Amino acid sequence: MKIDHVAVVVKNIDEALKTYRDAFGLALARVEDVPAEGVKIAFLPFADGNSELELLEPTRADTGVAKFLAKRGEGLHHLCLEVANIEATAANLAANGLDVLEDEPRVGSNGQKYLFVHPKSAHGVLIELYQKPGK
Amino acid sequence: MKIDHVAVVVKNIDEALKTYRDAFGLALARVEDVPAEGVKIAFLPFADGNSELELLEPTRADTGVAKFLAKRGEGLHHLCLEVANIEATAANLAANGLDVLEDEPRVGSNGQKYLFVHPKSAHGVLIELYQKPGK
Repeated sequence: MKIDHVAVVVKNIDEALKTYRDAFGLALARVEDVPAEGVKIAFLPFADGNSELELLEPTRADTGVAKFLAKRGEGLHHLCLEVANIEATAANLAANGLDVLEDEPRVGSNGQKYLFVHPKSAHGVLIELYQKPGK
Repeated sequence: MKIDHVAVVVKNIDEALKTYRDAFGLALARVEDVPAEGVKIAFLPFADGNSELELLEPTRADTGVAKFLAKRGEGLHHLCLEVANIEATAANLAANGLDVLEDEPRVGSNGQKYLFVHPKSAHGVLIELYQKPGK
């Protein structure tokens, strides 16, 4: 288990890039518009290649990300942990009483698997579990 | 620049360890009581050796960590980035308009250097900069 990414909700990715790309000097790998989830995502990998910063900008008002921004303002949103076997990890978390939000992992466009754990069951932290494609 | 740690404010470290050590399976390296900062800190390194999770439990009511917990509840508190030259990074951030909270880095008990950037200048994220001792 390792950190895959830390996600930050921002009002506007272009504005936030002035801080995280221009001032901190992180590389911007790409910006993706994900209409299905109502977000634009900027991916900024750290130089060690182990993890990245993600900036999330809501593009609709009816999503969890938009509601988070409206309620709490910009800031840290979730922590994503890469695991080797997402089904086994999720089953173990559920057996320990954590609230795993999906019965089955979602599968992304590249075959990656991911799911979320409710922050109320993890001391206030929204945790994403992530498994690389082909593993 | 890479993620050194992600810090989570919790009410009670022993309770939070049931989630992060027992359910997620992270190793607990140690728990430190830091009276000067009014916190107890649990260090849980990830297996890849690159970064760790820190659990912060306030031990006094007059600290930033205690006020954060009272206002926002448990959850993600700050993101710590390891840098090679903390003075140069801090000067560059300040030149880009970020609010660096210390004029000089603080120096920890092992010679490590660290300082914080105000979340209002970093899109809501409290960022710690960290430089390993002897570098």
